[in-house]
Amino acid sequence: MKRAKVGIIGASGYGGGELMRLLKPHPNVELVGFSSRKHQGKPLSESWPQLPYPDLFESQQAVIEKSDILFLAIPNGLAMELAPSLLQAGKRVSDLSADFRLPPEVYQQWYKTPHKSPELYRQAVYGLPEFFRAEIAGANLVANPGCYVTASTLALAPLVSLGLVENIIVNAASGVSGAGREAEGTSFAEINENFKAYKVAGSHRHIPEIELNLSRIEAQGRQAKTHGKSGEVKITFTPHLAPMSRGILVTAYATPRRVLEGAELLGVYQDFYQNEPFVRVSEALPETKGTTGSNLCWISPKLDARTGQTIVFSAIDNLGKGMASQAVQNLNLMLGLAETTGLCTGGLWP
Amino acid sequence: MKRAKVGIIGASGYGGGELMRLLKPHPNVELVGFSSRKHQGKPLSESWPQLPYPDLFESQQAVIEKSDILFLAIPNGLAMELAPSLLQAGKRVSDLSADFRLPPEVYQQWYKTPHKSPELYRQAVYGLPEFFRAEIAGANLVANPGCYVTASTLALAPLVSLGLVENIIVNAASGVSGAGREAEGTSFAEINENFKAYKVAGSHRHIPEIELNLSRIEAQGRQAKTHGKSGEVKITFTPHLAPMSRGILVTAYATPRRVLEGAELLGVYQDFYQNEPFVRVSEALPETKGTTGSNLCWISPKLDARTGQTIVFSAIDNLGKGMASQAVQNLNLMLGLAETTGLCTGGLWP
Amino acid sequence: MKRAKVGIIGASGYGGGELMRLLKPHPNVELVGFSSRKHQGKPLSESWPQLPYPDLFESQQAVIEKSDILFLAIPNGLAMELAPSLLQAGKRVSDLSADFRLPPEVYQQWYKTPHKSPELYRQAVYGLPEFFRAEIAGANLVANPGCYVTASTLALAPLVSLGLVENIIVNAASGVSGAGREAEGTSFAEINENFKAYKVAGSHRHIPEIELNLSRIEAQGRQAKTHGKSGEVKITFTPHLAPMSRGILVTAYATPRRVLEGAELLGVYQDFYQNEPFVRVSEALPETKGTTGSNLCWISPKLDARTGQTIVFSAIDNLGKGMASQAVQNLNLMLGLAETTGLCTGGLWP
Amino acid sequence: MKRAKVGIIGASGYGGGELMRLLKPHPNVELVGFSSRKHQGKPLSESWPQLPYPDLFESQQAVIEKSDILFLAIPNGLAMELAPSLLQAGKRVSDLSADFRLPPEVYQQWYKTPHKSPELYRQAVYGLPEFFRAEIAGANLVANPGCYVTASTLALAPLVSLGLVENIIVNAASGVSGAGREAEGTSFAEINENFKAYKVAGSHRHIPEIELNLSRIEAQGRQAKTHGKSGEVKITFTPHLAPMSRGILVTAYATPRRVLEGAELLGVYQDFYQNEPFVRVSEALPETKGTTGSNLCWISPKLDARTGQTIVFSAIDNLGKGMASQAVQNLNLMLGLAETTGLCTGGLWP
Repeated sequence: MKRAKVGIIGASGYGGGELMRLLKPHPNVELVGFSSRKHQGKPLSESWPQLPYPDLFESQQAVIEKSDILFLAIPNGLAMELAPSLLQAGKRVSDLSADFRLPPEVYQQWYKTPHKSPELYRQAVYGLPEFFRAEIAGANLVANPGCYVTASTLALAPLVSLGLVENIIVNAASGVSGAGREAEGTSFAEINENFKAYKVAGSHRHIPEIELNLSRIEAQGRQAKTHGKSGEVKITFTPHLAPMSRGILVTAYATPRRVLEGAELLGVYQDFYQNEPFVRVSEALPETKGTTGSNLCWISPKLDARTGQTIVFSAIDNLGKGMASQAVQNLNLMLGLAETTGLCTGGLWP
Repeated sequence: MKRAKVGIIGASGYGGGELMRLLKPHPNVELVGFSSRKHQGKPLSESWPQLPYPDLFESQQAVIEKSDILFLAIPNGLAMELAPSLLQAGKRVSDLSADFRLPPEVYQQWYKTPHKSPELYRQAVYGLPEFFRAEIAGANLVANPGCYVTASTLALAPLVSLGLVENIIVNAASGVSGAGREAEGTSFAEINENFKAYKVAGSHRHIPEIELNLSRIEAQGRQAKTHGKSGEVKITFTPHLAPMSRGILVTAYATPRRVLEGAELLGVYQDFYQNEPFVRVSEALPETKGTTGSNLCWISPKLDARTGQTIVFSAIDNLGKGMASQAVQNLNLMLGLAETTGLCTGGLWP
Repeated sequence: MKRAKVGIIGASGYGGGELMRLLKPHPNVELVGFSSRKHQGKPLSESWPQLPYPDLFESQQAVIEKSDILFLAIPNGLAMELAPSLLQAGKRVSDLSADFRLPPEVYQQWYKTPHKSPELYRQAVYGLPEFFRAEIAGANLVANPGCYVTASTLALAPLVSLGLVENIIVNAASGVSGAGREAEGTSFAEINENFKAYKVAGSHRHIPEIELNLSRIEAQGRQAKTHGKSGEVKITFTPHLAPMSRGILVTAYATPRRVLEGAELLGVYQDFYQNEPFVRVSEALPETKGTTGSNLCWISPKLDARTGQTIVFSAIDNLGKGMASQAVQNLNLMLGLAETTGLCTGGLWP
Repeated sequence: MKRAKVGIIGASGYGGGELMRLLKPHPNVELVGFSSRKHQGKPLSESWPQLPYPDLFESQQAVIEKSDILFLAIPNGLAMELAPSLLQAGKRVSDLSADFRLPPEVYQQWYKTPHKSPELYRQAVYGLPEFFRAEIAGANLVANPGCYVTASTLALAPLVSLGLVENIIVNAASGVSGAGREAEGTSFAEINENFKAYKVAGSHRHIPEIELNLSRIEAQGRQAKTHGKSGEVKITFTPHLAPMSRGILVTAYATPRRVLEGAELLGVYQDFYQNEPFVRVSEALPETKGTTGSNLCWISPKLDARTGQTIVFSAIDNLGKGMASQAVQNLNLMLGLAETTGLCTGGLWP
């Protein structure tokens, strides 16, 4: 089989670096080039000590010309500038930014900036394969989900699609890489031996994306369409920063409309995800380290019989299923390959 | 002033070590001895690299004989065996274990073991000075609170005492030292780069203690009595293990019966704790690292205006305000000293 | 091509877990079974959260019967009991313990226990492929090197084989997993924010193995034989424990017999290792994180022109090139495969 | 006794923050003010979450006017601009930067910048109290030592003052805070699970300072003078970055001119430091965590009998004995107080 010509725009951030790690040995991909404004013309290994290859960062234009499929791993606001010309030139685009995840009016409200390609949103397909894989296969523009969004949606979808719960609270903790490679306030000495919440009380930008997903799933069930009908799910969301590099743990609370005992609840989740290659449902509680470097989402639902609360835990690698490896899962769908090609469910321990 | 003769039983665990760090330089205390079954006769510094003193661990009996006040930093179940004879001998006892924190019948239900000194519970005073300081001053047996309990109670007390909330969820993360010095499953390679929940869905032993506290405060308000009347508060509690040695962050959710906007809510907390030397209320979100090595509890209450949820954050050092320095705060009360003697509000950073 | 039937004895330690991660997706290997005394009959995922497969740990005997090649990932002292019967039954054996790395009389001196299969040492081939690959291809018993040994030997071999240095000091730091999964004194709270030396002043068991390697290379050069002639290299070795899970950094000091300037020195290393797929020589200083999860050894040699000291840095993943992935590199040689099959040079970052 | 009026210039870096933690409760000090260009007019707690006091950062001028003694915790190059006017105004100055540690011509060579107050160097007293305490007591300008320098000098001084060794190699590892609060390349995700060397092969700026100290001690012995005679000691120095916030461990190698066996060597060190309140000599190997938050330097000397190398280990808290608490020890000397006033030998564990 001919290998797909793939390029990466923005290869010096964590998303781009992880994509490179996955695409270099991917059996059906030819990684034809990668760019970084900051590092153009310099060796890959200067920016990425873990990638000891002789390749150089090229210009954006050079990468675009050689590629049939382009991953955009650039900051929010830049993808919506670049995508139109790429699509017009017949390229397929997989965007890791937030630019095409939300209706433009919602985007503008939460990201505090005008949307520059609002018309493209209607063409975009939302890249959460467990719900949108039918659309992803044929998509020219894939909007890959946010990291908290992936973990939260997968944790709550079974309950929401069955109409089982209300009053949802999503409490989450993330490793530092979620803030990006050049984020302020992430120096080791300020983060180690520290745990804190941030962007609390309804202020984090992943909120509308989680709500949109759950609303779609509430209205459409498993086989959802990006631009299909939608319910009205609202959530309270509290992100925390944990002193680790990778990993997200979501602890979601919801009030059951109908109480399911522990075994029944576990059964609902096992049934819901039984054919998903990258979702693990278990009685054992998930640990973020169990997903490090993999494309796995590890989920365990529980009932607190004393108080009637349903509590669902889900763990992902924020740079894996929360970002780059999920984008590769989508690439596999776009190329008609087995979804698991070049990806792993087994993580690195310790 | 004559210095009080104080001894520590069980000085090789984290609670005992931290007590030693605080009591050695305490201006009104003579630390007359300390014991450890495992290390009896050996130098302190063999067990504690950070305490380079020439002293030796002595026998329990030797320490008891020399002391007027004894700290019990021994495992649950042993304090209730030892306390009766100490009290009979006229010693005052400050217990760091769980043995005298709960009514014996509740203790037996949650700790799965018969209580050996149930009659002593009636004499015990609960060592949370912000609510029980009047009783602590004259107590002969102080039951120092659990770590999660201190952070949770201080976070929620203002709302509960004013009858402002219902449906309480306490989501908490703790450093590893909370599990004790010889806990299984705490090896570095399994914990670093990992975040997970444990003892979920109503199974953690601090639940009845948090509920009892909040119930007392609901019924009695600020000036509570250990054995006074009590309400019926129930909570959902989810502890998590964070990859750090010290620190607890509580993120408490509650549904307001009457919605207080952000500024009003902050004002309620500032008023409630205005005279407390070791409670800091701020608009800034607490960070566990801001309390390291101190006796501080740092609190910030927020309203999520989108969903109507009240969210309260509180941070402590689990070995400080969550254990040893709180016990020293109680000691100061027992000795009629200023509560802040030998304690600090300023932590170690970074 | 028919896949080799491979089994793992001792699959619940870090070496066994890492082997499993690498062998599960290896294209030329059928992992027919794995055993653990402690976990026999239980699911793999109970012991290894990162390996979400349904397989069970089997008995040692069951694994042996199904396998043509066996990895022994069991403690020192047990491999030499098991290996004879395996070899007699016509199995090929790859041992990760220290049992066949040293002449029996040296083993007895350093490991303080009699050797139970001294005659087998003469059949063993030392599994450092950069020097012994010709022997490894045909070996029935491979003794895989120690972690510090691999990093130290690769760092110093070019200088020693050319007779360029004397007075060698090897200063090294390792992550905690090097101590094994059940090691004492490795709890998170004692290790985090801590750095210390251990087994200093000529007491660490990897010393005779490093000295033997360098002595062979001094006498035989690149194409060494396990049981060939040997020089008399002696080293001062100081291991340190760093607060991390994986990784070894060796900082080796040596007095040059002939001073090579920086560029010349770098050239010597580049030439020496130019055909090695898993050795990276660079002017940039190695970082352990650049090798995490890979089979890479990253080396940089420097001259301190002020004092005349030659200093060589080398980094490996102690569970990778220092243990499991090096054993897979040897397996590839044993099976006549490309040495790089199923292995990667690109690590996980961050 | 009247309390000394002390101010801090540059109170938003790690040195300044640690000074504040120590000076706030110091019984003989009135901390009259502190400045930071970046934070002027803002509350202390905005910059320092661990210092929950209501004070504001003031202007440099305001602080200077109120103070009799000024700590300069500002970057290298700024102290030499500010110090002359302070001294002229009759203030005493304790400088934490490198500006007055070295002869101006040496400073210029290593710090690549002209010295702006070369004449002041002759007035400066070197602030290592174990050797220069007689001078420090009367000093108007104290140059506090570098962190690596303190640990290295204390580790090697006994051997050097007795003329026992040659060929000194200082291998050291430091926590990240040594790089300062705003250092590049110190983000958590790049540092955690990583260990590496930096500024190797004779390029680190602490080299001339260590060499000058050891040269003075070689020539003058214990009771050294800053501007007294000097020998010609040279060292090879290799610093490493460890994934921790605080702590330095020095592992120093030296070739003995006369071999001292272990017990004799330990005795030499115990005698040498027997009256030093902040130096702990032990057979047990030092751990950095044993010094966290204290002013302790923990030393253990060893002989490798196999190779004849002497190896000395020393641990300090780089922000403690390596910076701020050592400056307070010097302050105590300047004020004629007991050297231990307001300082501790007991660290924080875990």
